[in-house]
Amino acid sequence: MLSANDNEVLVRTGPGTPMGEYFRRYWLPVALSEELPERDGPPKRLRMLGEELVAFRDTQGRVGVIEPACAHRGANLFYGRNEEGGLRCIYHGWKYDVEGRCIEMPNVPAGAAMHGKVSIKAYPTREFGDMVWAYFGPREKMPELPHLEPGLLPASHRFVSKRLQQCNWAHSMEGALDTAHFSFLHMPAPKVGQYVNPDTGADEKRLRWLRDDPMPQFTIVEHDVGFVVGGARRADDGQAYWRVTQFMLPTHSIAPSAMPGEFFQGYTWVPLDDESVWIYTYAWHPDRALTETERAKFAQGGFGQFAEIGPGYVPLRNRTNDYLIDRDEQKHRSFTGVRGIAEQDALAQDSQGVIADRTKEHLTATDVAIVHFRRLMLGAAKGLAGGVEPAAAQRAADYRLRAGGALTSDQLSFGEVMMQRFGSETGRVK
Amino acid sequence: MLSANDNEVLVRTGPGTPMGEYFRRYWLPVALSEELPERDGPPKRLRMLGEELVAFRDTQGRVGVIEPACAHRGANLFYGRNEEGGLRCIYHGWKYDVEGRCIEMPNVPAGAAMHGKVSIKAYPTREFGDMVWAYFGPREKMPELPHLEPGLLPASHRFVSKRLQQCNWAHSMEGALDTAHFSFLHMPAPKVGQYVNPDTGADEKRLRWLRDDPMPQFTIVEHDVGFVVGGARRADDGQAYWRVTQFMLPTHSIAPSAMPGEFFQGYTWVPLDDESVWIYTYAWHPDRALTETERAKFAQGGFGQFAEIGPGYVPLRNRTNDYLIDRDEQKHRSFTGVRGIAEQDALAQDSQGVIADRTKEHLTATDVAIVHFRRLMLGAAKGLAGGVEPAAAQRAADYRLRAGGALTSDQLSFGEVMMQRFGSETGRVK
Amino acid sequence: MLSANDNEVLVRTGPGTPMGEYFRRYWLPVALSEELPERDGPPKRLRMLGEELVAFRDTQGRVGVIEPACAHRGANLFYGRNEEGGLRCIYHGWKYDVEGRCIEMPNVPAGAAMHGKVSIKAYPTREFGDMVWAYFGPREKMPELPHLEPGLLPASHRFVSKRLQQCNWAHSMEGALDTAHFSFLHMPAPKVGQYVNPDTGADEKRLRWLRDDPMPQFTIVEHDVGFVVGGARRADDGQAYWRVTQFMLPTHSIAPSAMPGEFFQGYTWVPLDDESVWIYTYAWHPDRALTETERAKFAQGGFGQFAEIGPGYVPLRNRTNDYLIDRDEQKHRSFTGVRGIAEQDALAQDSQGVIADRTKEHLTATDVAIVHFRRLMLGAAKGLAGGVEPAAAQRAADYRLRAGGALTSDQLSFGEVMMQRFGSETGRVK
Repeated sequence: MLSANDNEVLVRTGPGTPMGEYFRRYWLPVALSEELPERDGPPKRLRMLGEELVAFRDTQGRVGVIEPACAHRGANLFYGRNEEGGLRCIYHGWKYDVEGRCIEMPNVPAGAAMHGKVSIKAYPTREFGDMVWAYFGPREKMPELPHLEPGLLPASHRFVSKRLQQCNWAHSMEGALDTAHFSFLHMPAPKVGQYVNPDTGADEKRLRWLRDDPMPQFTIVEHDVGFVVGGARRADDGQAYWRVTQFMLPTHSIAPSAMPGEFFQGYTWVPLDDESVWIYTYAWHPDRALTETERAKFAQGGFGQFAEIGPGYVPLRNRTNDYLIDRDEQKHRSFTGVRGIAEQDALAQDSQGVIADRTKEHLTATDVAIVHFRRLMLGAAKGLAGGVEPAAAQRAADYRLRAGGALTSDQLSFGEVMMQRFGSETGRVK
Repeated sequence: MLSANDNEVLVRTGPGTPMGEYFRRYWLPVALSEELPERDGPPKRLRMLGEELVAFRDTQGRVGVIEPACAHRGANLFYGRNEEGGLRCIYHGWKYDVEGRCIEMPNVPAGAAMHGKVSIKAYPTREFGDMVWAYFGPREKMPELPHLEPGLLPASHRFVSKRLQQCNWAHSMEGALDTAHFSFLHMPAPKVGQYVNPDTGADEKRLRWLRDDPMPQFTIVEHDVGFVVGGARRADDGQAYWRVTQFMLPTHSIAPSAMPGEFFQGYTWVPLDDESVWIYTYAWHPDRALTETERAKFAQGGFGQFAEIGPGYVPLRNRTNDYLIDRDEQKHRSFTGVRGIAEQDALAQDSQGVIADRTKEHLTATDVAIVHFRRLMLGAAKGLAGGVEPAAAQRAADYRLRAGGALTSDQLSFGEVMMQRFGSETGRVK
Repeated sequence: MLSANDNEVLVRTGPGTPMGEYFRRYWLPVALSEELPERDGPPKRLRMLGEELVAFRDTQGRVGVIEPACAHRGANLFYGRNEEGGLRCIYHGWKYDVEGRCIEMPNVPAGAAMHGKVSIKAYPTREFGDMVWAYFGPREKMPELPHLEPGLLPASHRFVSKRLQQCNWAHSMEGALDTAHFSFLHMPAPKVGQYVNPDTGADEKRLRWLRDDPMPQFTIVEHDVGFVVGGARRADDGQAYWRVTQFMLPTHSIAPSAMPGEFFQGYTWVPLDDESVWIYTYAWHPDRALTETERAKFAQGGFGQFAEIGPGYVPLRNRTNDYLIDRDEQKHRSFTGVRGIAEQDALAQDSQGVIADRTKEHLTATDVAIVHFRRLMLGAAKGLAGGVEPAAAQRAADYRLRAGGALTSDQLSFGEVMMQRFGSETGRVK
């Protein structure tokens, strides 16, 4: 439960807000590389942290992320011609490079003082892990890109996509840190005498352990760029079924499902504004290329993590159509009547409201990671407002982390489980 | 004509408003029983007096009307599973009974203090006359259900439906109390040399009397739960054609059309919010079952009172499509060019604005019932705000009333007409 | 560049605003005559300068423009019956003539004091040039209709239409006064080795001169009803290619394209509100009837000036569908990838914002007409607010003006060019 004021601090990310400024100390994905496939190709509208922007890939392959309004008379550069070395306004031909400099003004006489003096807002960009990243903060504070593992691997070893979610970023993010809900939201209908949900990658045993223990025991360990949380459920024969989740500042997480040998899954939340958020979603295998079959299944929303998306990366089952809930399916076959793990998550999260009201909750022991997340984020945002620069932003290398599931003796501590499963108490890849 | 302030008092029904509190002293229909057809069936979203709610029918057949947000973390119970004895949140499995008590918290350890202590807002419900009713006021003030006649009869003797109207409740209600408009709005086109409107149940003579006397003489008699208004028009050969309408607090009325032996027609207005209103609509015959032919005609918007509705009880001809007005039809065959009495009423009422501006009117003698209605409602709402509990709410039995038409000698007083037609000066069924 | 305050003054035209009051000193088109084709035909909704209105053509052929709300209880007269001599409210039959007088009140007793005393707001109207004009200002200030040339000619000599544009009137108007943009916005793609744009009426030479000189030299000459602006570009062999544009207060312009012997083209901007504007568009030939081929081409959006419109005079390519921009077309064949000169203008203008922000511009020498227009309009609106009545409104005859293109020796002054091309230094038709 938060005060109304803290709730506001947590959810607002526009320019000048405490959380908005905090986000602007980190590199954030702004598009998939595939959305700007060709040099001198069509520009693209972006909306990020409440700002309207235009992105384009120039003749050299560099991506520009600029404000949309031409400095001359404000015509929108989205309609611009993406020509040799820059984006040209259709109204009077002013042309801008990826750094926002106006490099041609054909209706201004040669030699006029204005030449070389006009520029528009532009943000630095990088490409990493099939995503275009941008940095919205002060140049002198600009950190390195975070070394998320999928970006460090050959492209063949990862699959990257995104999907729109129509609610505030923070409670969507909370849904990823709350692994207790798996015992309900993603289950087959309780009365079905079996533990098969065709939408999950989990097998019969895991589903049974998940359902039969809705109160996992959580342990949280902070690290330099966030925290790792382990949830232990009773398994068979004196064993514990652990599900380990990473949270990395400001909005990355790694999912708890991957058993040894399986691919990992991660997410990055990037607010378009305070009422909608892009969830960048990636799967990777450190040791091998993903197969064509796996890729095809990811692309169709398979394995649960990826939603089934339509044009514009909007999930086919979404808030506007009640996720195509099937009440008969809900009664007899699945807990929600909604197809797809990602869509079930969206249903639960969206349903908390466009912006969740955290002043009226009744939190339980299984919400411990959510409480920790809020404390960390509020402390960091308020800290920055008070002059404390975020340390994590400068620790790019510490983002090479993993998370996933493990089946162990129920006598092991979380630290021991982490050493056994990942060779590190925090999940850090050496 | 009202002051701007009185207009606001009249039209606003949200929590804490004078009229909203006044409405909350009465039972009001919140759904048709057919909208919750089966036990443990799908829950239903409701919007009532500006409040968002969820309704469900439990295993015992009881209807719960609860706030939508789960007490745990606010997920919307509309998506919930309607299981044995309650509605279960899809996020972490909290379960609520029809009284809003949280009866299961599977992610809270057995024995924890929270068990049995958590509940959400729930309103008492009843079923009566094929409608689900709820009471939104303080429990200690809760009255009996009003004894509207259709609810006291066998189900075979009534037909009950509802329709959405996209304007404020109060000027829609006024349209029902203003029987002068029948001389225009519902007429065939004036130049047609005959008095036939295929959309009304009225015969040639009644239509002629209605058109030929656009200034009926009105008499109003107050009674314990509202008032009855009679409008007398000149008929043939020294006779008067009376149309008698009931208004029952806070938002019921009985229509003036039923001639002796014909079925009665009534309405209840229930605001979703201040910009839209459900009109619950019922026809009944005290002495016989309605025929299959009559039912089929009601269901298709026949007899004028019932609109032709589409999905969600939204009239097919409505504000968003200009009621499919046919200007050629308007020129040559009907006064409005719009099909259906109910739709013609909606057209006239909606056209007064989403919220009518009563500060600019020029009222006439034929608006006397409207003036009376406003005075009664404003007095009652302001009275309650000043501590005077509404007496009518406690007089459930006095709601057994009738109204309709009569053809009598033009020498009779309104009291004599009422005695002759209904055996009571107020239309009360003995 | 304007101050934020001046920007507001320029763009706001609702009742009581300085610019709104200034507009209300002039006759303005409110509909095409063809929108009210028949006497006693269906009424029409209008929106003008932020006011909701209803127009109808009465039995004598006069057009009424009245407020929509019936004086009785506010039912909307748009749904009214357009009967002998007036528009009748469908609710209780009150009837209004074109001057807003309530001429029948059938539910008010004959002889009652109310008869003859009730009226609603109505504006004087005229028809001229196939348009219905109305005057929204004080009656004692009412001027003559402006003598725009197309209205003075036989109907056969003109073609008149309109189109909706979804942005503020002022920066759309600015687009017409800024003839420098033709060197970009309406050009074929720069890399195409030829100067043919199938959407323009201009020939190869004119296109070449336009492209090759993006910095025309402008001269502005004020006259009694606005100003005329000439832009000279280098042509071949010591010649200059002049494009001359008229601005007439408050919102008329004549386009610079017509070469000697070609038809003229003009426009009038009329705000629906501050976020959308009707552009009345007309072509005329003073010396001959337009041919059927020309009319057919105008009607299909040909010759550039007229957009290709759908129902309700809404352009098929508009803000809601990104003007059906074709990026491949933009890359290889035309500067914008959007078909149609009018649509390219709309694209550029809309893209400046629903209301352009003039506080952030970098104006150049080629924006001189825009600067002049703003100064003139702001001065006039502020002047009226200070008590100075607009002189131009009273000079109807001075609106008989022409504009267009000319190919002359590059040694001539603008005045000499005007004398040679139009026989008058200001373009006034003698």
